[in-house]
Amino acid sequence: MTQTPAQYDVIAIGNAIVDVIAREDDAFLATHALTKGAMQLLDAETAEFLYDAMGSAVEISGGSAANTLAGMAAFGKSCAFIGQVRDDQLGQVFAHDIRALGIAFDTPVRTQEPPTARCLIMVTPDAQRTMNTYLGASQFLPALALDKTTIQAAKILYLEGYLWDPEEPRAAMRTAIGYAKEAGRKVAFTLSADFVIARHRADFLALIEEGLIDILFSNEDEIRALTELESLEAAIAAIAPKVPVLVCTCGAEGAIAIVDGVRSETTAAPVAQIVDTTGAGDLFASGFLTGYVDGLSVEDSLKLGAIAAAEVISHYGARPEADLKLLRAQQL
Amino acid sequence: MTQTPAQYDVIAIGNAIVDVIAREDDAFLATHALTKGAMQLLDAETAEFLYDAMGSAVEISGGSAANTLAGMAAFGKSCAFIGQVRDDQLGQVFAHDIRALGIAFDTPVRTQEPPTARCLIMVTPDAQRTMNTYLGASQFLPALALDKTTIQAAKILYLEGYLWDPEEPRAAMRTAIGYAKEAGRKVAFTLSADFVIARHRADFLALIEEGLIDILFSNEDEIRALTELESLEAAIAAIAPKVPVLVCTCGAEGAIAIVDGVRSETTAAPVAQIVDTTGAGDLFASGFLTGYVDGLSVEDSLKLGAIAAAEVISHYGARPEADLKLLRAQQL
Repeated sequence: MTQTPAQYDVIAIGNAIVDVIAREDDAFLATHALTKGAMQLLDAETAEFLYDAMGSAVEISGGSAANTLAGMAAFGKSCAFIGQVRDDQLGQVFAHDIRALGIAFDTPVRTQEPPTARCLIMVTPDAQRTMNTYLGASQFLPALALDKTTIQAAKILYLEGYLWDPEEPRAAMRTAIGYAKEAGRKVAFTLSADFVIARHRADFLALIEEGLIDILFSNEDEIRALTELESLEAAIAAIAPKVPVLVCTCGAEGAIAIVDGVRSETTAAPVAQIVDTTGAGDLFASGFLTGYVDGLSVEDSLKLGAIAAAEVISHYGARPEADLKLLRAQQL
Repeated sequence: MTQTPAQYDVIAIGNAIVDVIAREDDAFLATHALTKGAMQLLDAETAEFLYDAMGSAVEISGGSAANTLAGMAAFGKSCAFIGQVRDDQLGQVFAHDIRALGIAFDTPVRTQEPPTARCLIMVTPDAQRTMNTYLGASQFLPALALDKTTIQAAKILYLEGYLWDPEEPRAAMRTAIGYAKEAGRKVAFTLSADFVIARHRADFLALIEEGLIDILFSNEDEIRALTELESLEAAIAAIAPKVPVLVCTCGAEGAIAIVDGVRSETTAAPVAQIVDTTGAGDLFASGFLTGYVDGLSVEDSLKLGAIAAAEVISHYGARPEADLKLLRAQQL
């Protein structure tokens, strides 16, 4: 198969979400029966109720895959994003912010209900984030929104597991995988969250068995849930032979990668003060993929992931604030 | 005149604005012919153009008088706000945030164009803020939105000079002053910005001459502009005899108050790192007024202003993040 030169380093399909971030204490989580550290989906009514209950907030563009692209763009990679917003003010905020980072974003805006997605995030004094997502327009990304040429023009197609849950985007992502594979491109996938795996485990395993996933991102809990194995090592051993690249983040313990059967590890990068862990996994992926695209060693790619993750947890919000190119130059 | 007990410590009339904050360098200000440190008004088209040009941003509720109330609420004072939003997402954000602080906000939402106000704020590496305001719905606050009983139920009516510029809110504020004075309440006024003084100097001087202003907030530039005197001391000397309380902030130099002819001063409170000066004057007013309401000495009221101002310039955004009651207990 001949490959045309890639226009983008990565194209991602993900939720187009604005984060609504407030500091809350553990009592707030208890009152509203929220599980610390988890992500849950809300319907419109519950989202409104919870928003009314939560404190004064800050709005910052988010979305898992979009955050990963924000990191890669900050590292200087060329990126494109596909995701669904509505023609409302939060949709304008999301579109503005992603384009301001130099990321191509051309998904046609939706002109009907529901509104643009938002994620109500409570950050507790221990810097943990508890996410409550109203998917709104984001779940209505149609396969029609995909441009085959654009998807085939990226070295890597990056997919967000969160978006496997709603039906329309799932179909769109299946289509996109076909386009990417047809052009000989790599497909990267992040498992995103336990509840997604609980609902779509068979699908994910089928994708992996069929050899459609080239780079799989996971955390400890997710790979255990995927394999239904208690032991992290057993879970890694079960999946690693089936994907060319497996990355498993382990929070403060660092991260592990198994590439073509060879294991590499990194410790977490130092952080003066952990403020808000939102986006840690997303930014880890941005650093690792940047290293992958740049042909760095697996160990250095892991380190770059740790550097990006450390930056994003040192402040509120899931988009990088510091100059990631400079941090790479200083710390790698 | 008999006074009924006050339900609120302060009721403020101000712009209902969401701030859109991005880091930009001096070259950005130069390219777009923006005057560093100033506030300018934008029409809808220019606001859209400038938003397109500016980088990825963060949205935080703002508005000068609303910021002052946010500070007073954080100090534990009871507050009410009057300001105009539209029934759009930014309007929901503003209303949510101010109510989440425990501030009463019952101004009927406007159901027609234009949209809720926003202020595009560029923060340069020197921590200076350059503000570009699209007033939108905010300038259509009608006198009808005022509830006489509510205004008369507050010890202090606080008015934002910015809102003297558009016609409808100016008429509303004149009405509100009448209500407050009729009930024997105090009227506080902040001059807000040079351009407002340039346009409404005669009005402001008339209010002062008529004895309608009990507490006047100003900064060095504003009191010079108001009096058309070069010397700060001469400007203060010209205005002080005409208002019971005159407060003049002098940036890093601290602040001066002249109360019934007696002069008090404070130095600025120490800040580890000045990040964003947005809201410094607004929060100074919140600290001073809190001291005034609590019957503190003028010197302590000035100190409380300096404490609140120091907190708000230590992070992005013009609303306090730290526990101001705790800072008061520790630092006063």
